[in-house]
Amino acid sequence: MELEIFTTGGTIDKVYFDAKSTFEVGESPILEDLHEANLCIDYQITAVLRKDSLELTNADRALVRQAVLNSTASRIVITHGTDTMIATAQALAGIPGKTIVLTGSMQPARFRLTDAVFNVASAMMAAQTLLEGVYIAMNGRIFDPSKASKNVEQNRFELI
Amino acid sequence: MELEIFTTGGTIDKVYFDAKSTFEVGESPILEDLHEANLCIDYQITAVLRKDSLELTNADRALVRQAVLNSTASRIVITHGTDTMIATAQALAGIPGKTIVLTGSMQPARFRLTDAVFNVASAMMAAQTLLEGVYIAMNGRIFDPSKASKNVEQNRFELI
Amino acid sequence: MELEIFTTGGTIDKVYFDAKSTFEVGESPILEDLHEANLCIDYQITAVLRKDSLELTNADRALVRQAVLNSTASRIVITHGTDTMIATAQALAGIPGKTIVLTGSMQPARFRLTDAVFNVASAMMAAQTLLEGVYIAMNGRIFDPSKASKNVEQNRFELI
Amino acid sequence: MELEIFTTGGTIDKVYFDAKSTFEVGESPILEDLHEANLCIDYQITAVLRKDSLELTNADRALVRQAVLNSTASRIVITHGTDTMIATAQALAGIPGKTIVLTGSMQPARFRLTDAVFNVASAMMAAQTLLEGVYIAMNGRIFDPSKASKNVEQNRFELI
Repeated sequence: MELEIFTTGGTIDKVYFDAKSTFEVGESPILEDLHEANLCIDYQITAVLRKDSLELTNADRALVRQAVLNSTASRIVITHGTDTMIATAQALAGIPGKTIVLTGSMQPARFRLTDAVFNVASAMMAAQTLLEGVYIAMNGRIFDPSKASKNVEQNRFELI
Repeated sequence: MELEIFTTGGTIDKVYFDAKSTFEVGESPILEDLHEANLCIDYQITAVLRKDSLELTNADRALVRQAVLNSTASRIVITHGTDTMIATAQALAGIPGKTIVLTGSMQPARFRLTDAVFNVASAMMAAQTLLEGVYIAMNGRIFDPSKASKNVEQNRFELI
Repeated sequence: MELEIFTTGGTIDKVYFDAKSTFEVGESPILEDLHEANLCIDYQITAVLRKDSLELTNADRALVRQAVLNSTASRIVITHGTDTMIATAQALAGIPGKTIVLTGSMQPARFRLTDAVFNVASAMMAAQTLLEGVYIAMNGRIFDPSKASKNVEQNRFELI
Repeated sequence: MELEIFTTGGTIDKVYFDAKSTFEVGESPILEDLHEANLCIDYQITAVLRKDSLELTNADRALVRQAVLNSTASRIVITHGTDTMIATAQALAGIPGKTIVLTGSMQPARFRLTDAVFNVASAMMAAQTLLEGVYIAMNGRIFDPSKASKNVEQNRFELI
């Protein structure tokens, strides 16, 4: 396997249940978009967590780190809620031999207009072209987690 | 004006705010879909309420009834949350000279896959072809409100 | 069966083949949209023809008429190219006991923005609410075929 | 400006004109998708050509090369028809100081299901992370143009 995608929840995975009139984290809908892209790479998608990123605990982050360590792939993409993406990126520091790229979206992947496909594609390409390390791919740019912040008002990631 | 559409909120109007990670009733997105349909009728859209239908009060229903009475159109469509659509339909009984059709959706209009456009189109056609009275247009069928119920498990309206 | 949909081709059914870089009439994509609408009516879809409507012959129209006559449903929707929809409507005159509604679209159903779902929903509702006869449901309105024309410049049907 | 996108036509830019019942190269629809991605980079989109890539001449390719040479950006993305993308890539060899990534799509960007957004995002990321040279970003992978071929039957690019 060349590349593994771990899903952890967040806005990108949100689906809507009318029966309850709520909007919850569900099965990741990005699989369908990747099918359309007809990828010429050997990859798989593995669900690790299904949580809003504000609810992630240290134990959850340890689980994600272990999943990355156990993966046979050296190219890793992690889809994640945007609110604590930077914290999870920092918790993944120091894993040798792996290029790890975190991404997510501001609008759920299920929406007609969404940044989800764009961001996942960016992250998959970055994971293949960058040297080992941990990165964030959001809003069309690659970020060093120590130099990125989420601008809540503008609803995007920025360089700091 | 031949036809007036009143929006009241509900699932059909739900939009997503990542900054708050919540899913709230917003400005109705159906306008964009109607633009695409390039309608050959004289109509307008008026926002009356922006609420989940479970939160509607008697005062809210009186407001909707007044809006219908004040409309210069005899053909009326009301978009509404599905949970209490039948109750609002009953609160609109007995208005002479108007064909009133309520509709809504199980998935937000903003979703890539949604029943919103289908239902609004059904309701607009029913409002033009039926005699005066109050009707519900959901799941491809026209319902007499006194003989309709929402099957929450199957997530659709049925004849009773 | 309460309602039968016959597909005949036209813009609504157009799909794109990159291998040939052409845009051809394919399997009707409306089935997927109807699935999303979760219809509460007993219906089926039957493909009769797969042609641009400008290429339809008298023999083709006789085939469509025969399909309608053979249907066990009294409520009939026919999806059709817009250029000769009126001619086909006239070729279906005089069938007793059936409400027949023709519809189509200006943009293929496969497009992200399309009038296809809106028009099919309009036609299905009109087929259930109107008395026997032949009608055209386009651009949100029901037309008597003898009083309708396609305005090619405005890309919509109008009353004449 | 950090990155410039040149559009040249091809499937990715195809729009549909019902009035003529044809499918032609139009104004590039990718602008809307990039708007949704809310990019945090300084870029612009420039239309150079509007052609099926099978119709491109040596003069057309010289025009594209000149546009790249004239650009103030060192990061370049070119959207292009897939049939002769490799030939154009080869015609862009030997431009110092620029990372040039060609991409396109098998389904028009206007479609509800399309590989266009995925591919443009891949290309924009590759243009920012790779050293100077000419590359093709298709089907989730980066290709050296001299080692890529389009598999027409499988409708995707492959390593050779």
